Amino acid sequence: MQTRQPVMTVEDLTAFMAREFPQVHDDFRVEEVGAMRVRVRLKVAERHLRPGGTVSGPSMFALADVAVYLATLAMIGPKALAVTTNIAMDFMRKPAAQTDLIAETRLLKLGRTLSVGDALLFSEGLADPVARASMTYAIPPDRAE
Amino acid sequence: MQTRQPVMTVEDLTAFMAREFPQVHDDFRVEEVGAMRVRVRLKVAERHLRPGGTVSGPSMFALADVAVYLATLAMIGPKALAVTTNIAMDFMRKPAAQTDLIAETRLLKLGRTLSVGDALLFSEGLADPVARASMTYAIPPDRAE
Amino acid sequence: MQTRQPVMTVEDLTAFMAREFPQVHDDFRVEEVGAMRVRVRLKVAERHLRPGGTVSGPSMFALADVAVYLATLAMIGPKALAVTTNIAMDFMRKPAAQTDLIAETRLLKLGRTLSVGDALLFSEGLADPVARASMTYAIPPDRAE
Amino acid sequence: MQTRQPVMTVEDLTAFMAREFPQVHDDFRVEEVGAMRVRVRLKVAERHLRPGGTVSGPSMFALADVAVYLATLAMIGPKALAVTTNIAMDFMRKPAAQTDLIAETRLLKLGRTLSVGDALLFSEGLADPVARASMTYAIPPDRAE
Repeated sequence: MQTRQPVMTVEDLTAFMAREFPQVHDDFRVEEVGAMRVRVRLKVAERHLRPGGTVSGPSMFALADVAVYLATLAMIGPKALAVTTNIAMDFMRKPAAQTDLIAETRLLKLGRTLSVGDALLFSEGLADPVARASMTYAIPPDRAE
Repeated sequence: MQTRQPVMTVEDLTAFMAREFPQVHDDFRVEEVGAMRVRVRLKVAERHLRPGGTVSGPSMFALADVAVYLATLAMIGPKALAVTTNIAMDFMRKPAAQTDLIAETRLLKLGRTLSVGDALLFSEGLADPVARASMTYAIPPDRAE
Repeated sequence: MQTRQPVMTVEDLTAFMAREFPQVHDDFRVEEVGAMRVRVRLKVAERHLRPGGTVSGPSMFALADVAVYLATLAMIGPKALAVTTNIAMDFMRKPAAQTDLIAETRLLKLGRTLSVGDALLFSEGLADPVARASMTYAIPPDRAE
Repeated sequence: MQTRQPVMTVEDLTAFMAREFPQVHDDFRVEEVGAMRVRVRLKVAERHLRPGGTVSGPSMFALADVAVYLATLAMIGPKALAVTTNIAMDFMRKPAAQTDLIAETRLLKLGRTLSVGDALLFSEGLADPVARASMTYAIPPDRAE
């Protein structure tokens, strides 16, 4: 859509996650970064599952939230303070049991104070999305760090 | 995503709109129908505008709602009774003044009782979307007509 | 919730609507203003209806949008430039035919740059809400007018 | 709103959680059940926190999701199979550090196939909500168990 290019690489985003979110960074793997886009994987483990082996709602929320957050940071640089202000999710299919989830994410707006993006979540290897999410982040006024 | 093909054409959907929604069908033009996709135009007129010549929020809502509804009908056939149960919209940019709006719509789920889709709304000729919408429709249990 | 008091009355809000939104102000009547709350009526007319006499989705959207907007202005004063950035609505019941709709609205957050509120929409005289809406508005940085 | 009374008590819901969601039931405490209403507490522990001691987004999501789910079950009886189909959340304030979160939940619709509810989330002891959530659940066609 816009032709701005990312200012952070997969490696930059991975290092940022490890530094700022040590509790959860092991859950995720940044797989690809592009202009206004990222792909992020949830490495599904026991703690993400519900009875029956399916990925829990909060784990899907966490993946979507992290993915659009990283898509924003990829474009504006490492600002740990951007905060989620809104999320809307549709849960459409039961995720495959014991299978990683992949978030394909795009930014739709990257403004001075707000970024808006959406994500489709897929069980690895399956064509139909299990969930859809859209999110808004407030970007702190002073972008310098 | 899914390989099901539409069962209604642009002409079928246009005739359905004229018959079932005589009050508003002149506002819209179905431009393209594909597998789980439609493109619909809001033919912007005075009644859709706010001061300054920009398209109103309710007009954007109406376009998104009609577009995902038609995407659903294109796949399942003419069921006037499908009803919108949920919508989430992000308004991201001011629409261009006095300019038609185009909704690019895809269905993400077409179940027995629910369909879920989303839409990006563009001012004609501009690359960045003015709004994003996701919607759910309840499909009446008996699909026979 | 918060103890801030409104700075605009029912009459102030009504005059503001007539001045800033001449195309639509006749559709609505501000009925009550309180701390972080307003009640607004949609005076249902032919143009708000769908086949069968029920209020259309775009008309419900318009009512919810206006109501939370006015709840915001009631607290911060007349700023025509606050813009809707997000809306989520659930349509739960069919509105009664040919009956006014009432929006009971509360603000949940009134920040420096964002306000967040929600609304329940009722067909006049009925106890169960026909729709639920939540909305976010961006408030322009300079609040002085 | 509606005068139907709950068919499960605080004790019933607590036992149901322990049986059906052994992984997470310790995180929550059902505090009060009424007609179309429940209050549920997130007993905040280390695993719910982000850097700075604030409750994470996925933990807030989990609380809202569980609370509206339990509000639904309280009215229709123990159906482990009701599934979340949609959620919309606004994150409005930073939760207080190291403080339990309380969800005040109400059902707005309890239909044959869908329930719709919303929740306000509060840091214990504070008057302003930290988040707002609305949710839809699909209820399996056969309610008999």
